[in-house]
Amino acid sequence: MARPPSPASKGKAPRTARGEKTLRKILDAALAEFGQRGFHESSIVGITRRARVALGTFYTYFDSKEAVFAALVRDMSSQVRDHVAPAIEGATDGLDVERLALASYLRFVVDHKEVYRIIDEAEFVDPQGFRTHYETTAERIAARLAAATSKGELRDDGDLANEVRAWALMGMNVFLGLRFGVWSHEDADEVADHANAMLRKGLES
Amino acid sequence: MARPPSPASKGKAPRTARGEKTLRKILDAALAEFGQRGFHESSIVGITRRARVALGTFYTYFDSKEAVFAALVRDMSSQVRDHVAPAIEGATDGLDVERLALASYLRFVVDHKEVYRIIDEAEFVDPQGFRTHYETTAERIAARLAAATSKGELRDDGDLANEVRAWALMGMNVFLGLRFGVWSHEDADEVADHANAMLRKGLES
Repeated sequence: MARPPSPASKGKAPRTARGEKTLRKILDAALAEFGQRGFHESSIVGITRRARVALGTFYTYFDSKEAVFAALVRDMSSQVRDHVAPAIEGATDGLDVERLALASYLRFVVDHKEVYRIIDEAEFVDPQGFRTHYETTAERIAARLAAATSKGELRDDGDLANEVRAWALMGMNVFLGLRFGVWSHEDADEVADHANAMLRKGLES
Repeated sequence: MARPPSPASKGKAPRTARGEKTLRKILDAALAEFGQRGFHESSIVGITRRARVALGTFYTYFDSKEAVFAALVRDMSSQVRDHVAPAIEGATDGLDVERLALASYLRFVVDHKEVYRIIDEAEFVDPQGFRTHYETTAERIAARLAAATSKGELRDDGDLANEVRAWALMGMNVFLGLRFGVWSHEDADEVADHANAMLRKGLES
């Protein structure tokens, strides 16, 4: 795979391992700042204080508060993807992939409750980043479902059905994460098993 | 059913039909103002100008910009519920209820695209209202599913399964509305049919 573009603003990508580490510290501090205070109440000084870096260091990597927020949205999106990817490797079939992906996502949000605040606030602060996050996530799910369909595992109801399924699964995962990961806690595997039974054989008795 | 509390601030409920009409005008104007400009850029003057009422009239009914926003969240939540309720009356069984509810919701959001901006921004402006909206919506779905289960229509996997199903359905509906109602348009019945086939018999071939 191609190396992903740096989260830094244009022309400000770090050139050393030490620079990469500082950039990471700023992103982690931005997550804590935006996650706790929201975009409007957050400040660059609040971020640099949390990261224990000088104000000038911030501007070495980012142009503005908006820029670091947009970088954080892409970063959280990648973190979710990278957390889930290894969890689905032992799946027995296409629907088992979705069960493992949901269980892994539920565990991720318990430890990263701020992810909801960040992605949700992006709708207002960084609308394009918000849309890209959900579109790329849905495309990833749609590709997995299409692969399982072409193997004959899933009923083939055409392209629109595949896209409807992908967006339905994503919405399901987002709301199960909010309810059973952020607002209160429930065993991730048990929740994922119930959701997966619905996907596998439906709800009819 | 008990009469719902007035959307007006405490002690400011209108006492005449004319007052009710003015309150409605203010809420509709608030929807346009908040929907287009977002909470932070919106102003009470912007709302009264759109509603063509005097600034003092606003304060006859609401204490603040926060108060009218919170009232609008409850109002949109009720509008969704009231729009969907008659659509599900002709349902043939419990899962047909969910098909008709989704199709009706998809039609609603095409004509009320601002509903997403309002409910989503409530997470930051009126967190309690945001949570109440989703919790009451999920409770409504859970009650419908539990009724269908007790009639023997749906597989009974216990209380947690019923709650997981309700939150999964709600998330599915929210994201299908965003994708196929707000961001682009697709035939509501076709989308609802595909989603419903998944709920009814699952995805396995």
